[in-house]
Amino acid sequence: MIVVKKFGGSSVANEERIRNVADKCIKEYLAGNDVVVVLSAMGDTTDELIDMAHSINPNARQREIDMLITTGEQVSCALLAMAIGARGIPAISLNAFQVMMHSTSRYGNGRFKRVDTDRISHELDSRKIVIVTGFQGVNKYDDITTLGRGGSDTTAVALAAVLRAEKCEIYTDVDGVYTADPRVVPEAKKLEAITYDEMLELASLGAKVLHSRSVEMAKKYHVELIVRSSLHNVPGTIVKETTQVEEMLITGVTADKNTGRISVLGIKDEPGTAFGVFDLLAREKINVDIILQSIGKDGTKDISFTVALDDMDRAVEILERNKELLSIKEIASKKDVAKLSVVGAGMMSNPGVASKLFEALFNAGINIRMISTSEIRITVLVDQVDIDNAVRAVHKGFALEL
Amino acid sequence: MIVVKKFGGSSVANEERIRNVADKCIKEYLAGNDVVVVLSAMGDTTDELIDMAHSINPNARQREIDMLITTGEQVSCALLAMAIGARGIPAISLNAFQVMMHSTSRYGNGRFKRVDTDRISHELDSRKIVIVTGFQGVNKYDDITTLGRGGSDTTAVALAAVLRAEKCEIYTDVDGVYTADPRVVPEAKKLEAITYDEMLELASLGAKVLHSRSVEMAKKYHVELIVRSSLHNVPGTIVKETTQVEEMLITGVTADKNTGRISVLGIKDEPGTAFGVFDLLAREKINVDIILQSIGKDGTKDISFTVALDDMDRAVEILERNKELLSIKEIASKKDVAKLSVVGAGMMSNPGVASKLFEALFNAGINIRMISTSEIRITVLVDQVDIDNAVRAVHKGFALEL
Repeated sequence: MIVVKKFGGSSVANEERIRNVADKCIKEYLAGNDVVVVLSAMGDTTDELIDMAHSINPNARQREIDMLITTGEQVSCALLAMAIGARGIPAISLNAFQVMMHSTSRYGNGRFKRVDTDRISHELDSRKIVIVTGFQGVNKYDDITTLGRGGSDTTAVALAAVLRAEKCEIYTDVDGVYTADPRVVPEAKKLEAITYDEMLELASLGAKVLHSRSVEMAKKYHVELIVRSSLHNVPGTIVKETTQVEEMLITGVTADKNTGRISVLGIKDEPGTAFGVFDLLAREKINVDIILQSIGKDGTKDISFTVALDDMDRAVEILERNKELLSIKEIASKKDVAKLSVVGAGMMSNPGVASKLFEALFNAGINIRMISTSEIRITVLVDQVDIDNAVRAVHKGFALEL
Repeated sequence: MIVVKKFGGSSVANEERIRNVADKCIKEYLAGNDVVVVLSAMGDTTDELIDMAHSINPNARQREIDMLITTGEQVSCALLAMAIGARGIPAISLNAFQVMMHSTSRYGNGRFKRVDTDRISHELDSRKIVIVTGFQGVNKYDDITTLGRGGSDTTAVALAAVLRAEKCEIYTDVDGVYTADPRVVPEAKKLEAITYDEMLELASLGAKVLHSRSVEMAKKYHVELIVRSSLHNVPGTIVKETTQVEEMLITGVTADKNTGRISVLGIKDEPGTAFGVFDLLAREKINVDIILQSIGKDGTKDISFTVALDDMDRAVEILERNKELLSIKEIASKKDVAKLSVVGAGMMSNPGVASKLFEALFNAGINIRMISTSEIRITVLVDQVDIDNAVRAVHKGFALEL
């Protein structure tokens, strides 16, 4: 069978770790499998190259930055090929030109359009371990593009998809996906399996294990992902279409402190006023998360919403500038808040998740400031000071440690 | 007109020097010319990468070493594009895949087979400065190959040839080609012009300004080369088919200390014995330089020849091993020798160069141990202790300082 293995920058940060990765690949190879490895650049190489670029030209064209930083993966891939070769196993490194990973033309944020399999299949057929540069594609101008955040994960999933690989293992510095952050909830349990949709909700909620793009692609092409540790030889978490653990009401509870609340007070209670506010923010590429609108009173209403902390000051400033235009009476903002979410495909068929969540928070004496839900997620906004307690209370409330 | 400019590793060793190179390129561009730049990797990057490779696998495949080290030129090219961009001039970096520099398949020592011009011409037409990675090609397997020593010079000449460039400037850390090494002969003069053949003799004699391969290619495709300083803005030396200075008897005098003499004494004076010796050495890839054979006496003869110092111990060892087979009585070797050569296309039409050379050495009291000549070169072997005096004496004897 074909196995795709992806290792991030910290897994190949030095010679010793590269040898460690080599051993993992060889073990898979000696088990009789065809092994395709996707690597990121070594350690902080990418950041160092970007620093050099900015020092030479703070407004360097992204095309040239992509040309520059993609050398990082080529270096790590060539070195891994040598490390595997040193153990007497044939290996070959391939860059995006050699595989032909066709991407859209946008530099710095390309998307795969098509990935050729000829070269990789040919090398696998001659029983080589094939090592492919992550994070990069070639666009229609024959230029190198990088894929943006989570790019190497996406490369691994794309290759697993086109090669119809049986397994796509994403090696990372955690052992898998947990029911909660083990640093906050020591009794948090590693999940054996999780669905794509659950993983997507978790990814977008700041569980930094997998980037949403790679999960979306895995879902689209039915690629089973395995998230596992590059350091400890333990099973990890499988990400797939459905899990057998449907009896679980929820899969995990996450916290996200990178959020702030903005309240727009006393705007006219007329059709179109809310649209005016959010259209303005959308034009400025500010993503709005939870939205809460009060019931109108005296011909006015209040709207509260959350944005990422990075966008908060800019959002407030934009609204202040358009205060009159939007007939806003007052703008208030609050940074010391945090989002808590419970995620679980099980909640689709099980009513009562929300009430159980609220009960757990009430018992812990935690005030809920806003609520938002999706099919498989319930998110509440609480004061930041309460968030860790809230996560622990909810984890316990749903008995996730069992 | 199209101008190709090549800068070596020391010319792009740091940010400041990259900016200096950017300025030179922009000046040419603003003069209305189409500018193609060929770069080596920054400073010692290539050596550092090779060290990393050897540390991971002392017997790493050359294919992977090529994959590794070619990232060096891609980095310097991208950074130069940014430095030029910072000055408001459009520039684009291209690697061997993007230009399509087709090479032979041998890794570590590829040769150009064909170089496409479409992409470069397209970028020049849109008035960009085009920056191409030196030292690399792509072979028929779609793999990156490096070109071996002098590779970036060869890239520059190849591009100048296929683009029919009017000028091919090789920037280096010397001001041009001199009549002798200025460190030995302070009154040595920079040559305005020199022929390909003269340059070839000089290059093969260890004047490290240009590698023979690039000169051979320039000769074949009639590319006029200009060797000039990357630091001082002075004219440099033109390398071309014929020079106007035919009245000069010789162009320069060079010394080469990287040589040793081996004497094979008392071998049978029969047909085939010399062949036996040199065939053996050729099989071991040991290049033999000057050869001197004594007149036979008592049915035996002596053969002396020179080899590069690096090969000397190995050559002696091989001969010792085959002493009986070759019916050699004795093998002697001497390392403290040096070659002095005078080079000049003028000597083809001017007899008496040799006698003038011998006279100069005789007047300086220097003993000649071996002699070898080509159409435009006379080489003598002297004791290493005499070499600097010999160079000065010959330089003066031919009045090269005038």
